[in-house]
Amino acid sequence: MDDQQAVPARAAERPGIPSLRWEEGPAGATVVLLDQTRLPAEEVEMTCEDVPSLVRAITTLSVRGAPLLGIAGAYGIALAAARGDDVGQAAELLADARPTAVNLGYGVRRAQAAHRAALAGGTDGAGAAAAALAEARTLHREDAEAGERMAAHCLALLDELVPGRPMRILTHCNTGRLVSGGEGTAFAVALAAHRAGRLEQLWVDETRPLLQGARLTAYEAAHHGMQHTLLADNAAGSLFATGRVDAVLIGADRIAADGSVANKVGSYPLAVLARHHEVPFIVVAPMTTVDTGSPDGASIVVEQRPAQEVTEITSRIPGVSGTVATAQLAPLGTPVHNPAFDVTPPELVAAIVTERGVLRPGKGSIAALWGRSPAG
Amino acid sequence: MDDQQAVPARAAERPGIPSLRWEEGPAGATVVLLDQTRLPAEEVEMTCEDVPSLVRAITTLSVRGAPLLGIAGAYGIALAAARGDDVGQAAELLADARPTAVNLGYGVRRAQAAHRAALAGGTDGAGAAAAALAEARTLHREDAEAGERMAAHCLALLDELVPGRPMRILTHCNTGRLVSGGEGTAFAVALAAHRAGRLEQLWVDETRPLLQGARLTAYEAAHHGMQHTLLADNAAGSLFATGRVDAVLIGADRIAADGSVANKVGSYPLAVLARHHEVPFIVVAPMTTVDTGSPDGASIVVEQRPAQEVTEITSRIPGVSGTVATAQLAPLGTPVHNPAFDVTPPELVAAIVTERGVLRPGKGSIAALWGRSPAG
Repeated sequence: MDDQQAVPARAAERPGIPSLRWEEGPAGATVVLLDQTRLPAEEVEMTCEDVPSLVRAITTLSVRGAPLLGIAGAYGIALAAARGDDVGQAAELLADARPTAVNLGYGVRRAQAAHRAALAGGTDGAGAAAAALAEARTLHREDAEAGERMAAHCLALLDELVPGRPMRILTHCNTGRLVSGGEGTAFAVALAAHRAGRLEQLWVDETRPLLQGARLTAYEAAHHGMQHTLLADNAAGSLFATGRVDAVLIGADRIAADGSVANKVGSYPLAVLARHHEVPFIVVAPMTTVDTGSPDGASIVVEQRPAQEVTEITSRIPGVSGTVATAQLAPLGTPVHNPAFDVTPPELVAAIVTERGVLRPGKGSIAALWGRSPAG
Repeated sequence: MDDQQAVPARAAERPGIPSLRWEEGPAGATVVLLDQTRLPAEEVEMTCEDVPSLVRAITTLSVRGAPLLGIAGAYGIALAAARGDDVGQAAELLADARPTAVNLGYGVRRAQAAHRAALAGGTDGAGAAAAALAEARTLHREDAEAGERMAAHCLALLDELVPGRPMRILTHCNTGRLVSGGEGTAFAVALAAHRAGRLEQLWVDETRPLLQGARLTAYEAAHHGMQHTLLADNAAGSLFATGRVDAVLIGADRIAADGSVANKVGSYPLAVLARHHEVPFIVVAPMTTVDTGSPDGASIVVEQRPAQEVTEITSRIPGVSGTVATAQLAPLGTPVHNPAFDVTPPELVAAIVTERGVLRPGKGSIAALWGRSPAG
């Protein structure tokens, strides 16, 4: 991308390279992203100088993760406003970059509304741009604070469910700093347990097909110095069978009004294993994930992803900068079933933890307890 | 390998390239293998002219699969005898090539015993070599016949369990022609159902970490023209949840006397999912897999495999012959839990099908019903 500069991250910044930051330099404002497509091999920041370059970063998954996409959308509006670009057009481009990501549209709308309100109040363009940026920063801070509150609520819950000794927590996909404005959702709980001396082991599912666990969660766990072990998703079964999992913590892509949880494919088999072995299966997600427009699990449409995600692995070749190899894992033309996520019914979920507290499914609907989701 | 010749397989032989064959040419006898490490990208036969080259083919997994290893071991003895090499030394080399594969030692012992008996009976070296070869061929034929009988027994069982309509069968790992002297174990059942017009869909688990499902089972299913669909192992859960699996068919690495089944890692989570959804979980394996020396599941030692199987994918780059690329899937140094298999307790197994018939676990021990395993 000609308008994005790859800047090798400084070693001294580890583990603190932010997933996304706003930077104002002599040449103007930019949105700087940690390029997630290059992790874990390289920590490289990517500078987006305008909305089209940010949109490309979103579509190519250089920035990803539901909460972080909302924040990126809001900063994108601030970027368009700061440059004097057409903010309405920027909003359309950004919101359409990944149409299934509800948080993205939510962040865009919030910053756009702040921009509009400032203009309507008689502020000039620079003032409206400042209002959009302030709203993006508010959303960013709110997300970080929601993460802190979720972690505190969930750690208290774990103290109750797994009392008295360090815990072995199993997690799936990537739910840490790379997907949020703060330290994440499910991962942030494990991190809080680690800091409290309560984490014996974080079991990291590699999370086929896109390997977010192997690539990103293992990276985050290592940077925080957490005791962690990677496994093929298949190996979780014998961990349960041999009594080596105390709790399963996952995030969520969408939570229906009845408490059904859509999350990365592979979550449901873990919920069934957890139930079989009487291990609590806990969902950690901000209220923006609750979709009261989906009454139940059956109303959630499961996205089918491209076959190539299963039949190929594309990877940079270590030591050969910029060289990409695609490995063919199956015969060409093999038919593939590749759902992006699965749906876990509420009866298999021990608790849903949001920034507002702990909900035990089966004891009232989420909609009734917490009202309409802010993202709804 | 300097003494192995890569011969591109002729297209006209598809799908009939045998996994292993004995060939006698002007330069002497050889064992010819379909090199499984090059599948599915290339169908290449590998010619082993002596026991050391066959041992290398075994250790590098060019030939693999419990029943087929037994056959390879027997032909290896025949090869040593035909060349006039030291048969006792050959037997040691072969039996040690993969010490955990019980079938390998069984095949070696059978051919070696035939060779010894012939010599003891006064036969000359050539006659004893012929006796060893005859025994290898007998073992080869027995294995193929056992596969046919298992398929017939299991298809009759499926007619009873899933009556009246084409079946959706889920399988894990690779259990077809590539692991046996015939058409395999669990895969051969699906193939028999296909030929009988009873197979609607074969769901093929990719089978991380080594991807035997993606690489080998998808290859075999395509060659037989079976309706099949590949999935990341994680996606099996939602197939069960949406009622799209009628039966699970797997092979076995070892069956304990109480009916506990050790098989490729990922089998146990399927057994738990199958139970949760009331889908029959069926194990198809020859009697040589029964190990009456293991009283129960807890007595089966689970082999831990190298971390690199999870953290790296090594693959030939398509179109660049001979070029191998290793993709790094996780941060260097990530701790890994990589068990080769898991153990499914008998209460989750609907039936164990061997060439002798169908056993319903819980209705008497395998040892009592069938006596000592021929491999025991």
